[in-house]
Amino acid sequence: MKKEIFIGNVGIGGNHPVSIQSMTSTDTRDITATLNQITALKDAGCEIIRVAVPAKDALVPFKTIVEKSPLPVVVDIHFDVYLAIKSIEAGVHGIRINPGNIGSNKKVKEILIAANERKIPIRIGVNAGSLEKKYWNAPGSTAGKMVASVMDKVRFFEDNQFFNIKISLKSSDVIQTVQAYRLIDKKCDYPLHLGVTEAGTFFSGAIKSAIGIGSLLLEGIGSTIRVSLTDDPVQEIKVAKEILQVTGLRKTGIEMISCPTCSRTSVDLIALVKEAERELAHFKPGRKIVVAIMGCEVNGPGEAKEADIGIAFSQKYGYIFKKGEMLEKVEPNRSITRLIELIKDFAGGET
Amino acid sequence: MKKEIFIGNVGIGGNHPVSIQSMTSTDTRDITATLNQITALKDAGCEIIRVAVPAKDALVPFKTIVEKSPLPVVVDIHFDVYLAIKSIEAGVHGIRINPGNIGSNKKVKEILIAANERKIPIRIGVNAGSLEKKYWNAPGSTAGKMVASVMDKVRFFEDNQFFNIKISLKSSDVIQTVQAYRLIDKKCDYPLHLGVTEAGTFFSGAIKSAIGIGSLLLEGIGSTIRVSLTDDPVQEIKVAKEILQVTGLRKTGIEMISCPTCSRTSVDLIALVKEAERELAHFKPGRKIVVAIMGCEVNGPGEAKEADIGIAFSQKYGYIFKKGEMLEKVEPNRSITRLIELIKDFAGGET
Repeated sequence: MKKEIFIGNVGIGGNHPVSIQSMTSTDTRDITATLNQITALKDAGCEIIRVAVPAKDALVPFKTIVEKSPLPVVVDIHFDVYLAIKSIEAGVHGIRINPGNIGSNKKVKEILIAANERKIPIRIGVNAGSLEKKYWNAPGSTAGKMVASVMDKVRFFEDNQFFNIKISLKSSDVIQTVQAYRLIDKKCDYPLHLGVTEAGTFFSGAIKSAIGIGSLLLEGIGSTIRVSLTDDPVQEIKVAKEILQVTGLRKTGIEMISCPTCSRTSVDLIALVKEAERELAHFKPGRKIVVAIMGCEVNGPGEAKEADIGIAFSQKYGYIFKKGEMLEKVEPNRSITRLIELIKDFAGGET
Repeated sequence: MKKEIFIGNVGIGGNHPVSIQSMTSTDTRDITATLNQITALKDAGCEIIRVAVPAKDALVPFKTIVEKSPLPVVVDIHFDVYLAIKSIEAGVHGIRINPGNIGSNKKVKEILIAANERKIPIRIGVNAGSLEKKYWNAPGSTAGKMVASVMDKVRFFEDNQFFNIKISLKSSDVIQTVQAYRLIDKKCDYPLHLGVTEAGTFFSGAIKSAIGIGSLLLEGIGSTIRVSLTDDPVQEIKVAKEILQVTGLRKTGIEMISCPTCSRTSVDLIALVKEAERELAHFKPGRKIVVAIMGCEVNGPGEAKEADIGIAFSQKYGYIFKKGEMLEKVEPNRSITRLIELIKDFAGGET
């Protein structure tokens, strides 16, 4: 089990569930825009927010953002120890640095002391794209170089009595990312922040993140995740929640099982499934409910029986199942209305 | 290494690259619609097509479809040995059955004899949703039950001198799917057809398939893949190609590295990346080209240098890199036009 740390009231590692993070893309100097984005991200399901402080004139607005943020805030700092110290003094709940670009060990030590005083964790974030030359030029795999770099930093932190650590090792290459996290997972007990960096726009970024983060989570690696997309960060949360749902780490929401349709399908299944998704878009049950909508008699009855609520269509009718028992036969054109009624009834009756 | 089989001219297993499959969703009795869909799928990158023959009146049109199809055809048969035999006689390149629903071992044997005569492979496709009761009621995990079911069928095939086999073990649950394929991968040498079944609509189906198929491919498991979506099957190919690209199994096309933007970004990076994606949408280089478009000086220069062609923006300018060397400084508003020129030049100069 990984060590437990806290970003504000959100536990990471230990027995805590895998949490979802994102990062603001607004100008930190614009307090209203930044707080609005944080609120939108929280509403979408984000649990920890990271905010960059790129320059001195962002420090005063940043203090207000931290005070008013509805989510615990991690500050993202590069190059500048002054910004790090001032952000810590502003009451931030965590700090992310790449110690390799802060300038010197003396400066990193100043950050460790300030963070220790406030009892806030530091994420050591090493990215393949900004690996220092001395590691880059060493022989071996990129993943191995990233791990060597981060382990040197971990030892320096520990030598300075700093143990409130979280680690990330991101690459824009999924294979490197997965290799690096597998290696570091065996080497130390600090919780890991998973992500594939610079993953690209919505579609390809979602696929990259799903494979990289998802395969690690399936191996039991990772305590908190951030999906990076070149898009509105709210989309990152949508992808992150789906990854946690698929890997069995989130037990709320609707999981929709539906078939790809084929020559055997006699109803317009794509339209029926989309209708159900629309009707359920804002329905948030307190636990996971598996719903199956199936187009034929091959896998239909099996999937429908395994689901909490399922419907399997044959030539003329839909057959509705609840927890494995056939409940009733319905006409396709009123099947989704009835299905939704039963899903809401099922959720209500058992929460 | 897995045994080698052939669906028409497409090799599966052995040293062959992982191939992409899909399935028609048209009515097989509609020859024109089905052939049009197969052509659209081929244009999108599909390499093998599966077509269901659900009833006798589909057999005559199916024969024409097989003759005219621009892709090798696998017929999907359930319940009915007559349809299987007639489809084989129609000249199909492969057949997929779940031997558990064909009715009896005697009937399965008829299919084996017919397939052996024509030298076409059979996919033994066991789905969790249609697992026979005798396996379902046995103790143990669902994945274990699926593997037990398929191994009984493999032994029956082998006892009847049939070795031209491909195996699939699909579940709508990603964890079960991954477990089942890991187990079967160790148990036999037949090539595996990967898929997460009934994965749902485009977004959640893409994430499910990416995690399930992607994590197996990263482990070296899988010889051919099919992404199942409740959507136009052309979308399945888009997702499948992205999965193969991300897992390093396809070496063609543009891989776009771009950052999620943050308070440090001073250009409208989302718009710039989307512009580049639009410009490159129909550009198909003969090999993989990595393009990086990065918004700031933290990871920007590193990623841009690692890419084949990259651009990293600072406050005022974009800095263009080619194979690690800084080429030139450009104004943001003409940066993408210049980037595209350099990408096309790079692709042209080296193919």
